[in-house]
Amino acid sequence: MRLVVIGGVAAGMSAAARARRLDPSAEIVVLEKGTVVSYGACGMPYFIEGRVRAWETLVAHTPESFARERNVTVRTGAEVTAIAHAKREVLLADGESLKYDRLVIATGARASLAGIANTSAPHVFTLNTIYDAIRLKEHLERTRPGRAAVVGAGYIGLETVEALRANGWRVQLLTRSAQLLGRSDEWLTAALRRHLERFRVEVSVGHPVADTREIAADLIVLGAGLKPCVELAAEAGVELGRTGAIRVTDRAETNLHGVFAAGDCAETNHLVTGRPVWIPLGTTANKTGRVAGANATGRRERFPGVLGTSIVRVCGLGVAFTGLSTESARREGFQPVSTRIEALDKPRYFGGRTLTVELVADKPTGRLLGATLLGEKGVEGRINVAATAISQRMTVEDLETLDLAYAPPFATVWDPLLIAAQQLGKLVH
Amino acid sequence: MRLVVIGGVAAGMSAAARARRLDPSAEIVVLEKGTVVSYGACGMPYFIEGRVRAWETLVAHTPESFARERNVTVRTGAEVTAIAHAKREVLLADGESLKYDRLVIATGARASLAGIANTSAPHVFTLNTIYDAIRLKEHLERTRPGRAAVVGAGYIGLETVEALRANGWRVQLLTRSAQLLGRSDEWLTAALRRHLERFRVEVSVGHPVADTREIAADLIVLGAGLKPCVELAAEAGVELGRTGAIRVTDRAETNLHGVFAAGDCAETNHLVTGRPVWIPLGTTANKTGRVAGANATGRRERFPGVLGTSIVRVCGLGVAFTGLSTESARREGFQPVSTRIEALDKPRYFGGRTLTVELVADKPTGRLLGATLLGEKGVEGRINVAATAISQRMTVEDLETLDLAYAPPFATVWDPLLIAAQQLGKLVH
Repeated sequence: MRLVVIGGVAAGMSAAARARRLDPSAEIVVLEKGTVVSYGACGMPYFIEGRVRAWETLVAHTPESFARERNVTVRTGAEVTAIAHAKREVLLADGESLKYDRLVIATGARASLAGIANTSAPHVFTLNTIYDAIRLKEHLERTRPGRAAVVGAGYIGLETVEALRANGWRVQLLTRSAQLLGRSDEWLTAALRRHLERFRVEVSVGHPVADTREIAADLIVLGAGLKPCVELAAEAGVELGRTGAIRVTDRAETNLHGVFAAGDCAETNHLVTGRPVWIPLGTTANKTGRVAGANATGRRERFPGVLGTSIVRVCGLGVAFTGLSTESARREGFQPVSTRIEALDKPRYFGGRTLTVELVADKPTGRLLGATLLGEKGVEGRINVAATAISQRMTVEDLETLDLAYAPPFATVWDPLLIAAQQLGKLVH
Repeated sequence: MRLVVIGGVAAGMSAAARARRLDPSAEIVVLEKGTVVSYGACGMPYFIEGRVRAWETLVAHTPESFARERNVTVRTGAEVTAIAHAKREVLLADGESLKYDRLVIATGARASLAGIANTSAPHVFTLNTIYDAIRLKEHLERTRPGRAAVVGAGYIGLETVEALRANGWRVQLLTRSAQLLGRSDEWLTAALRRHLERFRVEVSVGHPVADTREIAADLIVLGAGLKPCVELAAEAGVELGRTGAIRVTDRAETNLHGVFAAGDCAETNHLVTGRPVWIPLGTTANKTGRVAGANATGRRERFPGVLGTSIVRVCGLGVAFTGLSTESARREGFQPVSTRIEALDKPRYFGGRTLTVELVADKPTGRLLGATLLGEKGVEGRINVAATAISQRMTVEDLETLDLAYAPPFATVWDPLLIAAQQLGKLVH
């Protein structure tokens, strides 16, 4: 059995590693068009910032280590130009063709520059790949700090704002959408905006960019318009979903038998709505890659879906959410009620800081639908409790009595999540 | 309707406050034998340590503020000597009697000194109440640091060890049981012991104390043998459970109609075993007090139970657990399997530290039964995720695909909990 994996970053390498563990005899080949595999793309902003000194730190495995330790062939500089599924083979840019029995497509996502003119000027950058990050870092090292503009207010955009500020740049953030972080929550956008402005970041929302020459800046980073890389799959007859990403079953299989897709190029199921969504995140890429790899060896593993749980640090502020916002809950046919509280994450004598907690629930059923947290500390653990609760279809009432840990160095006796649940409990039913 | 509450600390004050919110017209009287109410007993070790400068910081409400803001009468120095339920009245030490329609018993717990001789010497202390804490603190302030012995390795014992060390004392920890923290986990006791010894704390486990004169120390803190204060209730015909604490329904009601019990004097239901347990904790006291207060006004609220989720900081190390240990799971009739892993709580370039995660599951069903975490950072959030998962009867497989938040400043892409779940997944079924 030969398994071919297209793409050697998070999903692809997870798939290859898992397949090897489950099937010691399969031939496994990873085809990566770049020169570096298995890198942590989420660490790139911290390489730009300088906290990560060498980009090699972000690389978990090399082709050599994968060959030696896992008996997986990783070919870099191997660009797949077509998938001929009828013949079960992939064609490479150099004219070579390679047969497969099973195929995993893990082609990722990239910032779409369509609609923006003049993106190849020397002061214009993207941050799709490690090569982009290296190019930007080199530029920062040989350039005196000046005015920078970041286009796009997703995770990478916001993290890049922080990284550029840390390098002494004055930063302007431009976003086409009226909202930051792509979350339909006006209060969140307002809070983030206030926070960024406190750090002297100039924020322009609802500001589409058609040409980089419109922006008066010494440095421009284009982070907007992330799109799944699906051209190769679509041309081979792999079906796309309504989100534009590859449609897959809960076994990570596409409409073509024996062809799997995982990571940022594929859809997943949303655990609250039960509908396909495209939420490209490193965590999901690793998990779906693992499931695709297992099923490619003949196992039957399921990936139940996601809540879009995510967290980002913006100039020292932790911002996290999971599940649905009030507005998206309404669009999905729920009758959302929500509450937003501020509470200390631990006692003041242990340096407690204010934490903002918003919970969203469905009024008639009391079911918890979403949560948003904002704070300097204590955000990551609590968003994960909320994610666990939402994934288990807990009600607000269930949450109110949850047995959470307390001691003064760590929390308050009534955890902010429980206080929010008590408040929200008054609004449901 | 007159509601009388016996005890003015966590459970009693929660009951009174909740009853008032639900019933604006009830007469509510809290009887507290001490002079201070509504204090955070869990903060006492940090008052001893010196981080909390004034004990008043630990007091959330005074009798005056409760009267003014909530129209609740709080009588201090009011010791109840008997409950005459047939007449629906309580008798006070000064001879007075007070009628009630509903009664909430919130008499708490105390370190039983039974079986230890010479406990009233001036260098011998307990830490049951704020008065004990004040007395110990005064002693520390007028005494040169020397050799201290702490008897008992529960939360208060271990926190007191840290507090005394911070005051310059050499500390010995003595415990009757073979285990620390009352958790039947040899590895945990061994790990904690190693950690304490690294901080030059001398640890003697399996060392019962019959007489304080056996201990060669300048200062002795007796923290062992915590018992529920049930004498008053038992004499009035309130039924006790097999744990020795007051038996209650899931509405916090005792066998006597209209008499409720909450907090450290009462049992609760264990959410894994479905059996009554006595696990005295501040979080549970607040929650059960709230439910008792609601039901005393005629509402019908349920307290589903606890997992014994707890956390303690021991010389900088966070130690937390929830649910059952492997040994207790076996005693309860499960077929436990467990796994213990070490992983970074976040990337090394963000100061990631090693976290130890143990998960326990039931082999035939895969149901998660318990978790233990140990680490300098990142313990509190993850134990709460485990508690949420266990309370919802999640399986190890459910946990493996949980959508947890990731960004480098906060976590690793595979959270330590998920890594542990993957490991444990190989052992179930």
